[in-house]
Amino acid sequence: QDAGAAQMARARQGTLTKPPGSLGRLEDLAEFLAGWQGHAMPALDKVQALVFAGNHGVCAQGINPFPQEVTAQMVANFETGGAAINQLCRLNGADLTVVALDLDRPTADFTSRAAMDDAETLEALQRGATAVQQADALILGEMGIGNSTVAAALAHAILGGDAQLWVGRGTGSDATARAHKAEVVARGVALHAARTPMGKLAALGGREQAAICGAVIAARLARIPVLLDGFICTASVAPLWAANPALLDHCLIGHASAEPGHNGLCAAMGKRPLLDLGMALGEGTGAALALGVLRGALACHRGMATFAEAGVSDA
Amino acid sequence: QDAGAAQMARARQGTLTKPPGSLGRLEDLAEFLAGWQGHAMPALDKVQALVFAGNHGVCAQGINPFPQEVTAQMVANFETGGAAINQLCRLNGADLTVVALDLDRPTADFTSRAAMDDAETLEALQRGATAVQQADALILGEMGIGNSTVAAALAHAILGGDAQLWVGRGTGSDATARAHKAEVVARGVALHAARTPMGKLAALGGREQAAICGAVIAARLARIPVLLDGFICTASVAPLWAANPALLDHCLIGHASAEPGHNGLCAAMGKRPLLDLGMALGEGTGAALALGVLRGALACHRGMATFAEAGVSDA
Repeated sequence: QDAGAAQMARARQGTLTKPPGSLGRLEDLAEFLAGWQGHAMPALDKVQALVFAGNHGVCAQGINPFPQEVTAQMVANFETGGAAINQLCRLNGADLTVVALDLDRPTADFTSRAAMDDAETLEALQRGATAVQQADALILGEMGIGNSTVAAALAHAILGGDAQLWVGRGTGSDATARAHKAEVVARGVALHAARTPMGKLAALGGREQAAICGAVIAARLARIPVLLDGFICTASVAPLWAANPALLDHCLIGHASAEPGHNGLCAAMGKRPLLDLGMALGEGTGAALALGVLRGALACHRGMATFAEAGVSDA
Repeated sequence: QDAGAAQMARARQGTLTKPPGSLGRLEDLAEFLAGWQGHAMPALDKVQALVFAGNHGVCAQGINPFPQEVTAQMVANFETGGAAINQLCRLNGADLTVVALDLDRPTADFTSRAAMDDAETLEALQRGATAVQQADALILGEMGIGNSTVAAALAHAILGGDAQLWVGRGTGSDATARAHKAEVVARGVALHAARTPMGKLAALGGREQAAICGAVIAARLARIPVLLDGFICTASVAPLWAANPALLDHCLIGHASAEPGHNGLCAAMGKRPLLDLGMALGEGTGAALALGVLRGALACHRGMATFAEAGVSDA
C-alpha cells in the first residue's frame, strides 16, 4: 500500500465541500483505493469481474437438491448474458470473465479423502492467478453446485466452533437438509483436522475456492483492490487469512450474505461488508452491486469542489 | 398500489435463473417498484432528485458553528455542480433540481414562537408538491444550516422520549454543543406540545421540511416511488407518518444516517434503510447512492433469463 497516496486522498477529503467525515465509509473507500492504486485520485476505469466455477465430489453425500449439471448450465447462462451477475456487471461497468474449472471432473468427496491432491490444488491456484488482468479493481465470484457445503467446511476447519454455525440453507435446502449438511461438514473437517490452513484448502475446498485464493494473491502482488462477494468467497480465502491476515489487506467484502456463517467469518477477519441486502446468490453479485458504492466514493472524491473552489465558508 | 402488477413481478422473480429469494431485498424492490408504477416490468428511465433548502431562526440559539450564509453558498455549489449530490446524481442517473426556499427570510426561532405560520407552511408544502414532475422515482434531499436541530425537534415532538436521544453532532458540533442543542430542542418541543402533528411541522419545521412533506404527498398521488435520504428527510415526514402511516407507503429510506436519532425514526416507521455506510451529509446523498441498489434490482428483474429461456434445470 502507498501510504503517501492514501494520506493525500485523506487530506483532499478534508477540503471538499462537506462537513469532515460526513461521507462516512465513502471517505475510507477513497483512501483505501488511493493507497492500493498508488494515486491520490484513484479511478475505476477498468474493473475486472472473475467468476470461477467448479464441481464437487461431496455432492455424492446428497447435500444439494440441484444436479451438478446445473453448474455447466449456469456457466452457459453466464456466457450468454442471462444471469444476475451479467446484469450487475453491465450496470456497474465491470468486464465479466467466467472460468469453468474442469466441470466434468468433480473433486473427490472430502468425507472419504482429500478433495484435491497437491497438483490439482496448485493448478487451480495458478488458473486463478493467471486469470487476473491489470485493472483498477477486481470483483471475485463463484458458481458450483454444492459449494456452500464446501464453504461451510472451510470456515469450520479454519475457525472452529460448531459445524452447525457455519451451515445455512444454501441453494434451496430445507431444515432437514441443513442438519444433514452440518453432519457432512463435521465429518469432513474431522477427517482433515491435522492439516495446515492451505492443506485444508486442498482437502476441503474445490477448484473455484483455490482459484479465488490464487486470484487474491495475484491481485495483492499487482496492488489491485479486490471486492469479494459473500459467504462462499469469504470462506474461500479463510485459509489465506489463517496463513497471514495481511494477505487480505487489499480485500473488501461486497455484501453481508444471508448465509448465517458469513457474519462470523467477517467478524473474525475484522471486515465489515459494504452492503446488507439479504442476498445469498453468489456469482459475485453482491460484489458487483457493491462496485456501485465504490464508484460513488470516487465520484465524490474526484468530482466535488473544495471549499476554496466553491467559495463556501468553512466552519 | 397496483397489487396485480406487484404480484406479476413477484411471479417473474420465481422464474429467473437463481434460487428463489436469493436476491433478497432486490426482489422486494422489484415488486415494490412494480406495484407503485403499475407495471410488472418497472423502469427507472427518468428519476428526479429534488433538494430543498431553507434557513432557520433557531440558529439564533447558537446550535450550529456554520453561519446561515452557508446555505446559499451550498445552493450555489449545487447549481455549479460541485457538491456531493451532483456527483452521485450524475453517477446514478438522476436529474437534480435544487429549490431554494426564501433563504433570505429564515423561519422564526421555534423556542420563542412557531417557526412558520399557517400561510408560510402551506406555501412551503405547495412549493414542494409543485416541484414534483412525472418520473419513475423521486429522490428527496435537503440543505439548511441548523436543520439537524429542526429534525431532532420534529422527531422528539412526534415520537417523544428524551430530547438527547434525537440529537447528534449534526454538522461539525462537539459534545458540549450537542448538550446545548438537546436543551434547545426540549424547550421548543415543550412550547408547542399541544399541537397536532401537522401543527408541529409548522411550529418546529422549516420550509424545506414542509416542502419535503408536500413532495411526498404529490408523489403519493402520482404513484411515484420515493427514496428519502437520511435523518433530516425522515424526520421531515414524521408528521405525515403520525397523521397517517399509509402516507409513506411509497417511500423507501435510502441510507441509515450516522445521526443517532435516525435508527429510532426508522424503527418507529417500520422501514429499514437500504444502505448503512456511516454517512451524515444530507443533500439527498444517501438516497442518490441507494438509487444504484434500485437500478441493480431492476437490472436483474428485467434482464435475467428464466430457467426455461436458459435451459437451466430447476430444483
